[in-house]
Amino acid sequence: MKYLLCVLVGLLITRNKRISFENMSSLFVHSDTAMSPKITGELLRQLRQAMRNCKYFSEPIQAYIIPSGDAHQSEYIAPCDCRREFICGFNGSAGTAIVTEQHAAMWTDGRYFLQASQQMDNNWTLMKMGLKETPSQEDWLISVLPENSKVGVDPWIIAADQWKNMSKALISAGHSLVAVQDNLIDAVWTDRPERPSTQLRTLGLEYTGMSWQDKIVTLRAKMTERKISWFVATALDEIACTVKFSEIHYSLFTSATLLKSTMLFVDLKRLADPALRDHLQLGSPSKPELSIQTFPYESVYTELQAICAALGPKDKVWICDKASCALTQVIPKAHRTPIPYTPLCLSKAVKNATEIQGMKMAHIKDAVALCELFAWLEKEIPKGNVTEISAADKAEELRSQQKDFVGLSFPTISSVGPNGAIIHYRPLPETNRTLTMNEVYLIDSGAQYVDGTTDVTRTMHFGTPSAFEKECFTYVLKGHIAVSAAIFPNGTKGHLLDSFARAALWESGLDYLHGTGHGVGCFLNVHEGPCGISYKTFADEPLEAGMIVSDEPGYYEDGSFGIRLENVVLVVPAKPKYNYRNRGSLTFDPLTLVPIQIKMMNTELLTQKERDWVNEYHRKCREVIGAELERQGRKEALEWLIRETQPIV
Amino acid sequence: MKYLLCVLVGLLITRNKRISFENMSSLFVHSDTAMSPKITGELLRQLRQAMRNCKYFSEPIQAYIIPSGDAHQSEYIAPCDCRREFICGFNGSAGTAIVTEQHAAMWTDGRYFLQASQQMDNNWTLMKMGLKETPSQEDWLISVLPENSKVGVDPWIIAADQWKNMSKALISAGHSLVAVQDNLIDAVWTDRPERPSTQLRTLGLEYTGMSWQDKIVTLRAKMTERKISWFVATALDEIACTVKFSEIHYSLFTSATLLKSTMLFVDLKRLADPALRDHLQLGSPSKPELSIQTFPYESVYTELQAICAALGPKDKVWICDKASCALTQVIPKAHRTPIPYTPLCLSKAVKNATEIQGMKMAHIKDAVALCELFAWLEKEIPKGNVTEISAADKAEELRSQQKDFVGLSFPTISSVGPNGAIIHYRPLPETNRTLTMNEVYLIDSGAQYVDGTTDVTRTMHFGTPSAFEKECFTYVLKGHIAVSAAIFPNGTKGHLLDSFARAALWESGLDYLHGTGHGVGCFLNVHEGPCGISYKTFADEPLEAGMIVSDEPGYYEDGSFGIRLENVVLVVPAKPKYNYRNRGSLTFDPLTLVPIQIKMMNTELLTQKERDWVNEYHRKCREVIGAELERQGRKEALEWLIRETQPIV
Repeated sequence: MKYLLCVLVGLLITRNKRISFENMSSLFVHSDTAMSPKITGELLRQLRQAMRNCKYFSEPIQAYIIPSGDAHQSEYIAPCDCRREFICGFNGSAGTAIVTEQHAAMWTDGRYFLQASQQMDNNWTLMKMGLKETPSQEDWLISVLPENSKVGVDPWIIAADQWKNMSKALISAGHSLVAVQDNLIDAVWTDRPERPSTQLRTLGLEYTGMSWQDKIVTLRAKMTERKISWFVATALDEIACTVKFSEIHYSLFTSATLLKSTMLFVDLKRLADPALRDHLQLGSPSKPELSIQTFPYESVYTELQAICAALGPKDKVWICDKASCALTQVIPKAHRTPIPYTPLCLSKAVKNATEIQGMKMAHIKDAVALCELFAWLEKEIPKGNVTEISAADKAEELRSQQKDFVGLSFPTISSVGPNGAIIHYRPLPETNRTLTMNEVYLIDSGAQYVDGTTDVTRTMHFGTPSAFEKECFTYVLKGHIAVSAAIFPNGTKGHLLDSFARAALWESGLDYLHGTGHGVGCFLNVHEGPCGISYKTFADEPLEAGMIVSDEPGYYEDGSFGIRLENVVLVVPAKPKYNYRNRGSLTFDPLTLVPIQIKMMNTELLTQKERDWVNEYHRKCREVIGAELERQGRKEALEWLIRETQPIV
Repeated sequence: MKYLLCVLVGLLITRNKRISFENMSSLFVHSDTAMSPKITGELLRQLRQAMRNCKYFSEPIQAYIIPSGDAHQSEYIAPCDCRREFICGFNGSAGTAIVTEQHAAMWTDGRYFLQASQQMDNNWTLMKMGLKETPSQEDWLISVLPENSKVGVDPWIIAADQWKNMSKALISAGHSLVAVQDNLIDAVWTDRPERPSTQLRTLGLEYTGMSWQDKIVTLRAKMTERKISWFVATALDEIACTVKFSEIHYSLFTSATLLKSTMLFVDLKRLADPALRDHLQLGSPSKPELSIQTFPYESVYTELQAICAALGPKDKVWICDKASCALTQVIPKAHRTPIPYTPLCLSKAVKNATEIQGMKMAHIKDAVALCELFAWLEKEIPKGNVTEISAADKAEELRSQQKDFVGLSFPTISSVGPNGAIIHYRPLPETNRTLTMNEVYLIDSGAQYVDGTTDVTRTMHFGTPSAFEKECFTYVLKGHIAVSAAIFPNGTKGHLLDSFARAALWESGLDYLHGTGHGVGCFLNVHEGPCGISYKTFADEPLEAGMIVSDEPGYYEDGSFGIRLENVVLVVPAKPKYNYRNRGSLTFDPLTLVPIQIKMMNTELLTQKERDWVNEYHRKCREVIGAELERQGRKEALEWLIRETQPIV
């Protein structure tokens, strides 16, 4: 067993805007992020000066890449890491900016085309990923760069696999990709925020269903099986899940690194709490082989170097190919074994019985809050005082009344009319619209409860929807049902289900430019790998019973309205008539139990099977959520629920 | 323009069994291939001896890989190239054998599980690809090899990308992949057949719609765009399509290589025909920059070496990553630009108006022959004299009566009852079953006509099918219709449509272990890239109008029956109600017009939309094929057609 050591590396990257009840509206009041474009001329001049400055790299560089991640390729990042947003103004969760002497371009996907075009000024070209005419970053660079150019990037925030592909393409065109150790955005970012440093929390067995010691034992067994001597973990949710920390700010990122009968690299100030030290058994492990040693976060580079220097000729080190290029390259190639998904990522995706029970409870509480919200909206909207922001605040207030509420799982998307067409919209004072009886309202929101994470989207009309709005809503509903009710063989990858969600839209010439579903963590990241339902991925892992994903097709009519219908669903065994080659079948069981607005449906477009699905879903909402509303004595919401779950014919 | 030169490399690999009318049954009389297992103990002993013999490689090798391809990674190969079949007995079109000191294992996919298990003896382990528990070749090798092993392979028949992946995996486990120049199977294959050498043919503009000169000009324009100096083409159909040779034996493979204002490497004996020399303008080109120089096939290695030695520092050479490892490695890494699909492959896939017209004509003629066959079978089967072989012979005879018939496009799959469950079954004297009124009959067949290639599967019952047979047939039909009638956005990749074909089967716990569709060449390979409809691929190219693919879901009940329904369909623009982001929509138009047996349908399981589709399809069969049957005066077939195309209600 002595060769089976592992390394986990992490860094604090939680958002510094903690959502607390006393400070309810702080989420939406950003003076620096708006839907009007950011003026970037002077910033770009300074960045280009830095690109020419040999203080940062031995020669001038002709292009600089600004990825959107942090040193852990996290999705939700601390303000001090929002470098791509700082340089171009676009604040969506995905996007890469590239600045050359002459050009500035930013690549993002279909969820963000509208938002990015509104947030960036004329200095920037929006590169719409996924459209045929849009060049890849590599191809674009090759087409604009002078011969023999150097392209710089911060090696700590580019993933190793991205570095590899970019470098290969540039070399084949006579250019080179170079690592610039000092981040050039930081060099020109005078008022860059501090990195936050809050205490870490721990989670008990009643929530996790498995101790961190058992998780380490399981991990080591997989390492033994693959003859791996070391494992470097860098994804914060994987580390959090393993050592059972929980730090809750939208996404539960923790700072951590493990190595040698487990080493943990972390901002040591965050480990001051004696309960936490006790949880980790620091200093006094009951089983010495499961002890954890802690080290300052900054020392990971040198410690890993030292470890690698002492490797035997056959020692292999696992590291995710999405880990940072800088850390990956510390491991000599002969020892490095990059993997697309780590064993932690895979085991985290399949929820155990305790976690499933917790997720179910969290969704019941969440549905109670949403039923209350919708009952309240129905009453308040006619008065003309409800805005996108106040509706989002109300949703948060109602969620916060539920047991074990910790915070939101992501910034609430609360959008009316044309704002609904901005797929990842966040209401801001300058864009804030009032909810009326004339426009479609879309709310995509979720919370972290200690027992689970939620993510739900409902699209409602509080007056009379147009025939076109109803038509589109119904196609989206058909897609949602097609996925949710699908029966498929064990071992099917989620991307093979994506087209089911689109068939009805496609038939009418419509579509949506985002995936259909993502993995959902249990009191962890609201977006997690390695499973999902998206035409964009192929290397996703097969779905298995116990995995939890979202099912969220949509339709977006720019300048007019947005529709999305999202449930979180649990993968469960199905029992169809036959069982081909004993493979077994799977289907989905919705955890989200919030009525789908019947008023928005054109029921004539639904098949009998689809109508039956809607009625059965609403029956279950009434049964499960109705009972909880009753228990909590929330009468108005219960009445609303009963009204909204009448069977359709 | 002087830098825009190109190289094409090819080798004669046509089947030596020419299908001629005088020799109708020769196709099925193989004394050396049977459904009883091949005895391989002695062969394996000899191969292992060769593996230890330092005459072939400087050190003993511990494992030897036998891929199924030839030097051009062709699907249908000459008997002299059937090395994998020789060593293990399994004669399907896809499979890789690996022999170690202790073990012998063969990997193949779901189409061939049953066939392979019947053709291989106990010396061999069948590795069922696509099943979760089946290890990859790499993983298996790593699990069985002693430390520091050498794994040998013939570098001329392993594709460069396969070499790369295998080599990487072996190195990471402390082993190595080594190129053994002499093929070790050839070394133990005492009665290996001669390589065939027939004359090449040419195709006129009336069939191709574009001259080879124009194709070269188009190719060079793409090379200019991507700053490519040289292009090495090795896929025989790409070369045939470009220089407009046609050599017809199932698949139209020609031997060719082009380089420097076009060089062609070919068995020069095959260019003796003056008409052919004239077609290629050998010696007297009307435009010198389009002249072709011919070289002996064997000289490609040294010529390419000489060319590469003279490359300038910026010269880039395109070569498909599926080209042989040996030829790929001639090109120094700094100049080599591997591509997954060549521009020839892409342009070949999109048929021009002349080719589409030709394909339509070919399918009409083919349907005439099949209607005649089925009318004949209906009459003859009750007499008890029709066998799988005689039915296949009759199909060929009837096809051969049609204009411009050249040969079959692949060996006919004519299978009754349990033989139908062997997905790529070929009837042999020892397996030949008689067609009866009690069993399901499946015939998958096609022909090469000078104007186009066909591939069609029909499943029929000439008595009374069981309820289960009808149920399965109906699910397969539902899947076939779901794909054929699908409307999807421009730019959609075919693999995204694959699940449509399975949804109805999945719902009942059934499935089939092969892809749903493949590209179909126009008087070229019956299986061609880069488009298709399969869950197995991801890097397929998006479907576009003018592409032609098959739509062929199935269901196979081992030991009992097989069902498959296959049409060849043309990708055409669709005009749905809306046009999201002006992307445009596509759908499929069936080129195959042969009735689908109504007797096999459980019409109660069909939706109204599906019944409408069946009726409209049968109406078109009657209209188009009926007219041609009438014109050709084939009365019995016409009567059969009219009977089989009555509307269902």
